[in-house]
Amino acid sequence: MISLDKIREISRASATKIVLLVIDGLGGLPNPETGKTELETADTPNLDALAAKSICGLADPVSPGITPGSAPGHLALFGYSPTSFNIGRGVLEVLGMDFNLKSGDIAARGNFCTVDKSGLIIDRRAGRISTEQNLNLCRLFDGLNISGVKIIVLPVKEHRLVAIFRGEGLDAELSDSDPQQVGILPKAITAKNTIARRTADIANQFIARAEEILAENYPVNMVLLRGFSSRPKLPTMREIYKLKAAAIADYPMYRGLAKVVGMDVLETETTLEDKFQTLKQNYTGYDFFFIHTKGTDAAGEDGDFDTKVKVIEEFDKALPSMTALLPDVIVVTGDHSTPALLKAHSWHPLPVLIHSKWCRPDRVNEFSESKCISGGLGRLPSTEIMLLAMANALKLDKFGA
Amino acid sequence: MISLDKIREISRASATKIVLLVIDGLGGLPNPETGKTELETADTPNLDALAAKSICGLADPVSPGITPGSAPGHLALFGYSPTSFNIGRGVLEVLGMDFNLKSGDIAARGNFCTVDKSGLIIDRRAGRISTEQNLNLCRLFDGLNISGVKIIVLPVKEHRLVAIFRGEGLDAELSDSDPQQVGILPKAITAKNTIARRTADIANQFIARAEEILAENYPVNMVLLRGFSSRPKLPTMREIYKLKAAAIADYPMYRGLAKVVGMDVLETETTLEDKFQTLKQNYTGYDFFFIHTKGTDAAGEDGDFDTKVKVIEEFDKALPSMTALLPDVIVVTGDHSTPALLKAHSWHPLPVLIHSKWCRPDRVNEFSESKCISGGLGRLPSTEIMLLAMANALKLDKFGA
Repeated sequence: MISLDKIREISRASATKIVLLVIDGLGGLPNPETGKTELETADTPNLDALAAKSICGLADPVSPGITPGSAPGHLALFGYSPTSFNIGRGVLEVLGMDFNLKSGDIAARGNFCTVDKSGLIIDRRAGRISTEQNLNLCRLFDGLNISGVKIIVLPVKEHRLVAIFRGEGLDAELSDSDPQQVGILPKAITAKNTIARRTADIANQFIARAEEILAENYPVNMVLLRGFSSRPKLPTMREIYKLKAAAIADYPMYRGLAKVVGMDVLETETTLEDKFQTLKQNYTGYDFFFIHTKGTDAAGEDGDFDTKVKVIEEFDKALPSMTALLPDVIVVTGDHSTPALLKAHSWHPLPVLIHSKWCRPDRVNEFSESKCISGGLGRLPSTEIMLLAMANALKLDKFGA
Repeated sequence: MISLDKIREISRASATKIVLLVIDGLGGLPNPETGKTELETADTPNLDALAAKSICGLADPVSPGITPGSAPGHLALFGYSPTSFNIGRGVLEVLGMDFNLKSGDIAARGNFCTVDKSGLIIDRRAGRISTEQNLNLCRLFDGLNISGVKIIVLPVKEHRLVAIFRGEGLDAELSDSDPQQVGILPKAITAKNTIARRTADIANQFIARAEEILAENYPVNMVLLRGFSSRPKLPTMREIYKLKAAAIADYPMYRGLAKVVGMDVLETETTLEDKFQTLKQNYTGYDFFFIHTKGTDAAGEDGDFDTKVKVIEEFDKALPSMTALLPDVIVVTGDHSTPALLKAHSWHPLPVLIHSKWCRPDRVNEFSESKCISGGLGRLPSTEIMLLAMANALKLDKFGA
């Protein structure tokens, strides 16, 4: 793989436009009754027609055999090696919140949970409390300060929260307090290096204070923290690719990830029609658009094969409103597979299509896992997709004399 | 390629079982008369049926264009980069002998040979003496000690031996004395760095002593040494993959290699039926089995196309006794190609199939070089096969948030 520094040398700004459509958890596994995956089961005339005039392949986000988390899956699509750049879950959540995470802040993801009288965790989600109740609980932490470190607790959906530690000399190399199982005590947070010891101490004091603050709130009587992380420093897509990039995504984590690589995050709604409308409205202002759609992953995680099929069909129906804009380059792929049969992210490679005037189409005329095996892109690391998109947009100069 | 350290972080022990079948020298070249390789000529209904419910591809052990030795070929299959981990031939021979090679010992592979009165090599194998005669010759070296270094000479098959140098401050960076041709003098052993000078000196003294010891044993009147090496330190498969791994192999070198990566080496016999019987007897005790079969490589090296075909057919016949155990993951591949037409190892990639409940089968319904080209695994480095086997066994956690 060519280095980001080298890409920076040969990339050039131009008027051409790239649209990257990410269908979250797109890849699947065949239904044992039909032998067809979710994508192969779905009726997708528009995707198939697009595939017929595209070059196709199967992409591995991290490596064959490796199941990617959402962050590595997306970083790879943006051309960043997910084994070189690591972004903590806490930071990702915060970045999607329109909260201004400062350099030096430490963020952790958390759950409101229930512990019994001995302190043993009995429900990691405190009965999946409402987001509104969460909002009220977070207010109880307003103004909290431990040894000069300000702690900001922000609500996410249902029982989820983020805790941001702001102060001098903090370090994110901390273990989790969340053991991710019930029937045992929360873990003490420990420092992975000597610099992080003070931060570990403050984080443990925070947990103790949280227990006091929530004392009267049974069944919400404890906080679990995990994924301590600080804001990563990545070169931006503008620096690397000279792109003016915009993200059209409604889920906080993907909006956060887009910010980390320097994209403008546009206001949009949940449906794909809304997102394509946002694209249309902002079409002249940018030359790269990352459009994220979540429903496929959610259905896959739920083990709901039929709903995943339906979401893919909805995607297909909405597609013409995007292709009507005639972007110079269209990429359709996913960040990882989420087969309904596994009810989880998986290691299976993703179908990918790249369409442009210059793509040299192959003979794949159906956008599916099994047909993309024979595509002209072969089996490729997802990190190469951005390079191919840039090339097809004629935004890369020649390498070497 | 993801690092072994990273795999160690995400691997987890579980009840699922992986069987890796290595058909040594599997890959071939087409018979000019039929256009079919050895594997394509063989009647293999069981392998073909397994391929039809597997994901297939073509694997390169070291790199496209590189012909692997047996050690690199196997290291790659176990997931160790063969360009990062190098194991000397001498060490490999010794490790397969139930001889306790200590850290600091230097081992060399050797031949008993014949030299004429001028010292020129006239037969590198001394007429392929019997293994029994070899045993008697090795006894002549009992108790040999040069400058405080003990030298142990052990018989291998026919004219082959290993010499182990045991003492303080030895170093294996030595050139061979065996020129691997006749009509010339054995070479003086030289040190590749200053630390190894003393060891080179002792090795040359050993050769001179061997000449004296064998003086009355014409035609066995000299020893040739090559492949000086010391015991390598590799992380074990238990450390990396959390696997309890067993090797079922009858040839010393493969048993030795399995020990180097921390496998238990099970007692077994030569035929595949014996090996599958050993598998059955030990099935509950392990969660990873490496099963090695040698006949294909031997036939290839002999240039015997028909025998190689026959050995593959015997493999196919024996297969159902293994598949009847219903391992969660089955991998069938080779360590390198040995086309009968070349009478030697070659660089050609290997057919590989991976079967599991979660493998996402492709349309390959015949296990052959030409059909595997169109497989869902595409063309992959052999080092990725273990990762894929682990993924299919659901023994790898998600990478990143």
